[in-house]
Amino acid sequence: MSVFTYTVRATSGRARTGVFTTPHGEVATPTFMPVGTQAAVRAVTPEQVRRSGAQVVLANTYHLALRPGEGLIEKLGGLHDFMRWDGPILTDSGGFQVFSLPGVEIRDRGVRFKNELDGSVVELTPERSIEIQNALGADVIMAFDECTPYPADEKLAGTGVRRTLQWLERCMSAHGRPHDQALFGIVQGSTYLHLREACARSLVELDLPGYAIGGVSVGEGHEEMCRITEHTAPLLPDDRPRYLMGVGLPEDLLAAVGYGIDLFDCVIPTRYARSASVFTARGRIRLTHRRYRRDGYPIDPSCDCEACSGGFSRAYLHHLFNANEVLSAVLATVHNLRFYQRLMERARAAITAGSYVEFQRRFLEEYGRGR
Amino acid sequence: MSVFTYTVRATSGRARTGVFTTPHGEVATPTFMPVGTQAAVRAVTPEQVRRSGAQVVLANTYHLALRPGEGLIEKLGGLHDFMRWDGPILTDSGGFQVFSLPGVEIRDRGVRFKNELDGSVVELTPERSIEIQNALGADVIMAFDECTPYPADEKLAGTGVRRTLQWLERCMSAHGRPHDQALFGIVQGSTYLHLREACARSLVELDLPGYAIGGVSVGEGHEEMCRITEHTAPLLPDDRPRYLMGVGLPEDLLAAVGYGIDLFDCVIPTRYARSASVFTARGRIRLTHRRYRRDGYPIDPSCDCEACSGGFSRAYLHHLFNANEVLSAVLATVHNLRFYQRLMERARAAITAGSYVEFQRRFLEEYGRGR
Repeated sequence: MSVFTYTVRATSGRARTGVFTTPHGEVATPTFMPVGTQAAVRAVTPEQVRRSGAQVVLANTYHLALRPGEGLIEKLGGLHDFMRWDGPILTDSGGFQVFSLPGVEIRDRGVRFKNELDGSVVELTPERSIEIQNALGADVIMAFDECTPYPADEKLAGTGVRRTLQWLERCMSAHGRPHDQALFGIVQGSTYLHLREACARSLVELDLPGYAIGGVSVGEGHEEMCRITEHTAPLLPDDRPRYLMGVGLPEDLLAAVGYGIDLFDCVIPTRYARSASVFTARGRIRLTHRRYRRDGYPIDPSCDCEACSGGFSRAYLHHLFNANEVLSAVLATVHNLRFYQRLMERARAAITAGSYVEFQRRFLEEYGRGR
Repeated sequence: MSVFTYTVRATSGRARTGVFTTPHGEVATPTFMPVGTQAAVRAVTPEQVRRSGAQVVLANTYHLALRPGEGLIEKLGGLHDFMRWDGPILTDSGGFQVFSLPGVEIRDRGVRFKNELDGSVVELTPERSIEIQNALGADVIMAFDECTPYPADEKLAGTGVRRTLQWLERCMSAHGRPHDQALFGIVQGSTYLHLREACARSLVELDLPGYAIGGVSVGEGHEEMCRITEHTAPLLPDDRPRYLMGVGLPEDLLAAVGYGIDLFDCVIPTRYARSASVFTARGRIRLTHRRYRRDGYPIDPSCDCEACSGGFSRAYLHHLFNANEVLSAVLATVHNLRFYQRLMERARAAITAGSYVEFQRRFLEEYGRGR
């Protein structure tokens, strides 16, 4: 039996909470995975990530292959040891980053691009992506797919689906560690629901340990993302985790959980934190705004993160951001990561209680009130 | 009786270990005070500073008066509350920073300079420095002195001593919180031992709660610093803490402890950390050097800091520095701060054991071996 199992524990409408088992431990879903692009969640220690309640972190194949190189990481014991994260890790395929590079060449064989660090020409193929991900050793690895840009005409979207499916088979053939690394397939098809459907059905036939919905968070907006996810999620098997890639804002996550999504990743909480944008129960605020100059309250009085429970005031954070102190990024990141984890914890509890829609409504009502 | 007492517990040669009591707790000496220029020790949380073993932190009057302003900090409950450090704090007088500004005007009345943040002309006088420091509310505040540059002729050094003594009297008159803020006087006199001696004797007559040796770490070098400290420290009363300002490297600290110094501050451990320079039992190393690219060992295998005991390898830190990840500064700072505190812990233990010189010799022998 595979080490990778997914068991639904409770449902509320189409929202579900469950347990995903991996070689590095169990993951309660729905969950949010902080992004550690270069084998580090920006501005925080693994201990701070752990204390935020995060169960899984994501790292980027593209960045790590270029620097420091997957061979070095493998030699040093793999990505878990290297970045000192003993929980589950997911690596992306590198495709998403590569497709957005200037001058990238996409062929059936794979993708060629210029290494941004030294200018050399690099090729990324399904085989090479899996080779890198096998060396890194994450618990979940992602198929090398063609992420269709937005907007795309139907022909381009169709090509994306065809390549994604062909490349997936090559990924599966190349995959050297199926016993301890789960290879997830990715549903593409842009905004064309019939393409999404065809792609999903083909993927499901391959009986993969998990499925992702890709080609979202590429500029299509909340409504389109919802439409795609609502339509696609139910096409995926109940007993496998469903991962919505690169999403998103709190309202996006809650909508997607309502459609039956289990896993999320996004740079928003960490990236926003570094530009002083922090999430509160009453919406997002920008700590550099002068209204917080003398504000003695914590970022969010209802939050239990190290920054809020530690008594750091908005005025202090305002000062730290103005003074360009590294601690500003640290504390804001600690807060935002905890905000996202609390959101998922509360979603799980609401699903277990059978009242997910009510929770979502109340959360959004208060969240919108601060605006 | 004053809340500020200093009691020697043991001596070894002229080195001494003791306890300095403050409104925010006891301080075991000799101790090193990390610098939190802008009310934050750069790149680390107060919790990380605490875990390093630091007992006192230093903050800069000049920087905090300009931004965010001492009035704001006072309104928010004082510096301890503002920066969430519940242990003792020491503030400098602002003089040291101001004297190094371009176009500064020094008169008997005080010092005029351009505010680097908005270009306005600001005046710092003994009265104003104490007013700011009273508002900030640190446990130890420093007299506004004239820090003689190096090198200086005897006349300039003499003027510095005269001003320092005159300004000290004005500081004492202006001091509004002698019951809970200890005002330390500062010995100036540059490299002229007879001036140092005259200055020290005048200060001691004022029966202050503590004394500092200033005008060092201004380019005079290890030998001169030693000569000044060795001569000056014994002129200060045994039952008051002695603070050597702005010093220094591990070898400087150990020499000064040997002359009877109790308190140190310096930006070296934090500043060096941010440029990848870290201290080990076998000397200082630079983590960006390519020899550490594949090095699986922690920074210092004998260290118990969060970075070393947490298993972060030199190779990982090398990668983080190359990738410009904030975590590089965090982990290197955590390590360097702990290195300095362990150095002081071991110095205290050696003094208690009556074997300080032997400890110093052995430490420097191993420390020099890595070079």
